[in-house]
Amino acid sequence: MDKERETGLMLDPKYDASGLVTVAVTDSHSKDVLMIGHMNAEALRKTVTSDIVHFFSRSRQKLWMKGETSGNLLHVVDMRVDCDQDALWIVAKPAGPTCHTGASSCFYRRVKKDGLEHI
Amino acid sequence: MDKERETGLMLDPKYDASGLVTVAVTDSHSKDVLMIGHMNAEALRKTVTSDIVHFFSRSRQKLWMKGETSGNLLHVVDMRVDCDQDALWIVAKPAGPTCHTGASSCFYRRVKKDGLEHI
Repeated sequence: MDKERETGLMLDPKYDASGLVTVAVTDSHSKDVLMIGHMNAEALRKTVTSDIVHFFSRSRQKLWMKGETSGNLLHVVDMRVDCDQDALWIVAKPAGPTCHTGASSCFYRRVKKDGLEHI
Repeated sequence: MDKERETGLMLDPKYDASGLVTVAVTDSHSKDVLMIGHMNAEALRKTVTSDIVHFFSRSRQKLWMKGETSGNLLHVVDMRVDCDQDALWIVAKPAGPTCHTGASSCFYRRVKKDGLEHI
């Protein structure tokens, strides 16, 4: 366990083998989880400096400002890092629906014991 | 894009190369993100059947019932899956502090432009 990383006040992300950390984004108003994505160092730097959420797209292998084509940006309201600095939690104000399906959150289905249920 | 996975009512997780999906757990009361972890198929099955959150520990490479040693179990209140089924959001009632540091949430530090700040 890296004590300095856990208790210190320096941002020192523990990137995985692909150079990424996991990011959960919640809605500042509804408190719902909107989406889960990944950031590399560049996406993290751009997010911190611009207050607009940037990810690293694993499928396209490139930096991605969330909403760059749809206009549905995520404006950073608060940002937290976890104990071992391999995950971030961002509280954001979304400019529109977060999910590419048009749903406000990507989590539009409930998991039940016998399958899924639309919210 | 797999349409059935995105719109259907069958749980069909899209596991990564390591056989894992990402899981964000929020507190049913405070709405805070408590922790982010990973599940393999077995951890997911045990979580759904028992309503107690189970993870797959990447560092120890084994199934892990959260709180199995501390007693601080996470009781499932609601569970959602995202559009492409590679991430889960669990709303839980924690039996005690979630973080091994004793903090209620693993996200006890704010990311600011010039470093971290304890909440």
